[in-house]
Amino acid sequence: MTRANVREQLLEAGLDTLHRQSFNGTSVQDITQAAGVPKGSFYNHFESKEALGVAVVQRYVQDRRRHKIILADQSLLPLDRVRKYFAAMGQRASDTGYTRGCLIGNFATELSGQSPTIRQELSHSLREWTEILVPVLLEAQEAGQLAGEVSVQDLANVLIDTWEGAVLRCKVEQSGQPLERFLNGTLNRLLV
Amino acid sequence: MTRANVREQLLEAGLDTLHRQSFNGTSVQDITQAAGVPKGSFYNHFESKEALGVAVVQRYVQDRRRHKIILADQSLLPLDRVRKYFAAMGQRASDTGYTRGCLIGNFATELSGQSPTIRQELSHSLREWTEILVPVLLEAQEAGQLAGEVSVQDLANVLIDTWEGAVLRCKVEQSGQPLERFLNGTLNRLLV
Repeated sequence: MTRANVREQLLEAGLDTLHRQSFNGTSVQDITQAAGVPKGSFYNHFESKEALGVAVVQRYVQDRRRHKIILADQSLLPLDRVRKYFAAMGQRASDTGYTRGCLIGNFATELSGQSPTIRQELSHSLREWTEILVPVLLEAQEAGQLAGEVSVQDLANVLIDTWEGAVLRCKVEQSGQPLERFLNGTLNRLLV
Repeated sequence: MTRANVREQLLEAGLDTLHRQSFNGTSVQDITQAAGVPKGSFYNHFESKEALGVAVVQRYVQDRRRHKIILADQSLLPLDRVRKYFAAMGQRASDTGYTRGCLIGNFATELSGQSPTIRQELSHSLREWTEILVPVLLEAQEAGQLAGEVSVQDLANVLIDTWEGAVLRCKVEQSGQPLERFLNGTLNRLLV
């Protein structure tokens, strides 16, 4: 295995194990074992488990960016794009039986008090997520789909926070019902 | 210290440390140290850290029940009671600088996949929380404050999930702004 391959294996195995087992519930050895690399090789690639944690957040966000294309689909009205975007994200949560939750939300509750570095990365990724939603909400305002007096910045943040709350509840209930309530009820209340 | 006192000390110290440091980030020794009792005494009172985790959820929920009185205050209109109730809960989050989050939400993301016992306790406590809100939402419907076609059961769940999402974001941002958006914006959108 090349050096770059080992790093990639560690990153993928780290994303999978940390997402499933929580950060503190996962040891470096769990990660190297899942990656199929010698334990000693970990520190050639990451200074610490925390450093891997930051890289894992970045990789997770990067994976999620592929849904962005939905928000640019000019064949749909802006708010229909927003609904389709969240539905696509919900599909992804459904693929794992709602057992994993959102990595950002998981790390947010577990690590915000423990690791300032990871907390800042989470804050950054949530801010970036807001910035993805703002233009399409502005488009909706221009198209008259959304009331003109709404702060689209606030609304984008509320959508994300509400999404995180619904995914969290799905994880507790091991059910998609909270996300259905979000997609078929809450979104309609918020997007007016 | 009497036997009952030791159990109480462990429970209080457990609630504090597990809330602050996460479940997997806290050892039994951290808890006995915080409680000021010998490490060996832990297992005289709790079969495992998981068993303490369940007791800690129950204690947290019990502490929170004191806010229920607001929902019964007949001097206020039903929806004003709901707003005041969540504002009182927000005050509690503010008291610790938004650094701790909600213990239910923290355990939900960290432990739902790890401990079926704790997951069931969380699910139970969230269901109980819903049941606290349903009667006052029904009152609001009867008083014409809330549209008659709204499912109050769904709405109670949505309020709780949305609350959890806002508290989660407060923890990342170490700021009360997400809760302000919830209290001054989202609640008004949902309670119509």
